[in-house]
Amino acid sequence: MARTLEVCLSPSLIPHYEIDGRIVVVIDIFRATSSICYGFENGALEIIPVATVEECKSYEGDSYLLAAERNGEVVEGFNFGNSPFSYTSEKVSGKKIVLTTTNGTHAINKAKNAEKIVIGSFLNLDSLSNWLNEQNNDVLLLCSGWKNKFNLEDTLFAGAIVHQVKGHIEKLCDAAIAAEDLYLKAKEVGLREYLYKSSHSQRLKELNIEDDIQFCLKQNICSVIPILKNNKLVPMQ
Amino acid sequence: MARTLEVCLSPSLIPHYEIDGRIVVVIDIFRATSSICYGFENGALEIIPVATVEECKSYEGDSYLLAAERNGEVVEGFNFGNSPFSYTSEKVSGKKIVLTTTNGTHAINKAKNAEKIVIGSFLNLDSLSNWLNEQNNDVLLLCSGWKNKFNLEDTLFAGAIVHQVKGHIEKLCDAAIAAEDLYLKAKEVGLREYLYKSSHSQRLKELNIEDDIQFCLKQNICSVIPILKNNKLVPMQ
Repeated sequence: MARTLEVCLSPSLIPHYEIDGRIVVVIDIFRATSSICYGFENGALEIIPVATVEECKSYEGDSYLLAAERNGEVVEGFNFGNSPFSYTSEKVSGKKIVLTTTNGTHAINKAKNAEKIVIGSFLNLDSLSNWLNEQNNDVLLLCSGWKNKFNLEDTLFAGAIVHQVKGHIEKLCDAAIAAEDLYLKAKEVGLREYLYKSSHSQRLKELNIEDDIQFCLKQNICSVIPILKNNKLVPMQ
Repeated sequence: MARTLEVCLSPSLIPHYEIDGRIVVVIDIFRATSSICYGFENGALEIIPVATVEECKSYEGDSYLLAAERNGEVVEGFNFGNSPFSYTSEKVSGKKIVLTTTNGTHAINKAKNAEKIVIGSFLNLDSLSNWLNEQNNDVLLLCSGWKNKFNLEDTLFAGAIVHQVKGHIEKLCDAAIAAEDLYLKAKEVGLREYLYKSSHSQRLKELNIEDDIQFCLKQNICSVIPILKNNKLVPMQ
């Protein structure tokens, strides 16, 4: 059977894509999906993605770490937000986490009907690509974007995946072709350098998270593939 | 005042963009907006964009030419669809046209609250860019896409505009940066060659409209800028 790979550039566009029977890769490079990968690599047991800050709060007292980010900042009263440096082994090993973010958990919730939902970031690029290459399902790479608009970093990562799996795919959509070309272009000058052009990264710069950005662009420091099971993210076995 | 330019990659994403006070450039390269430019260049008096085939039909008998396209083909019973070769001076000079297309008129209708709505295509690239450079409003380049998904050709044209106007713009969104880079990449190999990679163009190829595609990629054979006035497109004076 001919395999298709599509790239959805914003959660708002999901209604126009086939979800049933597909593997959906959720992408929110700065910073939710990078931190999720890093958290599992460091021994987190499960991460529950929830849509709202209120829902996150409802887990209080149940021995969960509560992580809530809105507009790039930790929400007041929460343990932490989505900085990868909050997901070190000292902090998350053996722990359960409830997480809500501006863009990333929103995307996960929109893809609930997929055959499998997995989490992608530059941190686990190779292991995710290799796994995708062993599957038979069609693939949808779902970029979280920024408040439902296109963003560069998620698209670049989608392009990195396309570049590594296209030998096993018969049909790429236009957005996949564009994403790969943008990734190859960005790679020439270096991802961080390329993103300096991005309005979004400039905004992130103002939030003083340059260390996070550098970290989230590291490749293959994680081998884990987070997967959604019963509405909870767990490390794929 | 700092001017902003954003690129909206699908009509479905319009709700996330500011429209009020902006100049919206509607883009549907294959083929609606190319044909609209060509029609005015050849003396058409007005083109009324309507959302549905039924609405188009309601103008029957009122001395309008009726143009209806769905899924790349002329709808049965209509004078013509959206091939630019239907918009020659022999056919449209001095005529009024009612037009409905799969993607293009849909986008026009979604942008109704803009300060100005104008029509862009490679055919009028320079005159449109020069005009945009003389304006003070923020600009939204609105790609019609294909059935609400991203397509390459509309994005490449958005990138061509970005390339020609960015000297007069202070703030570009991520999608504008990506569009320009894709355009510059495509220009290196030639637009037609680049689009051979596109799933959408392959589909168009199956519809036997290679001549249309070649034509719609010609640059600057029109100087007209179509603009929406009272729900009708007319040539800007």
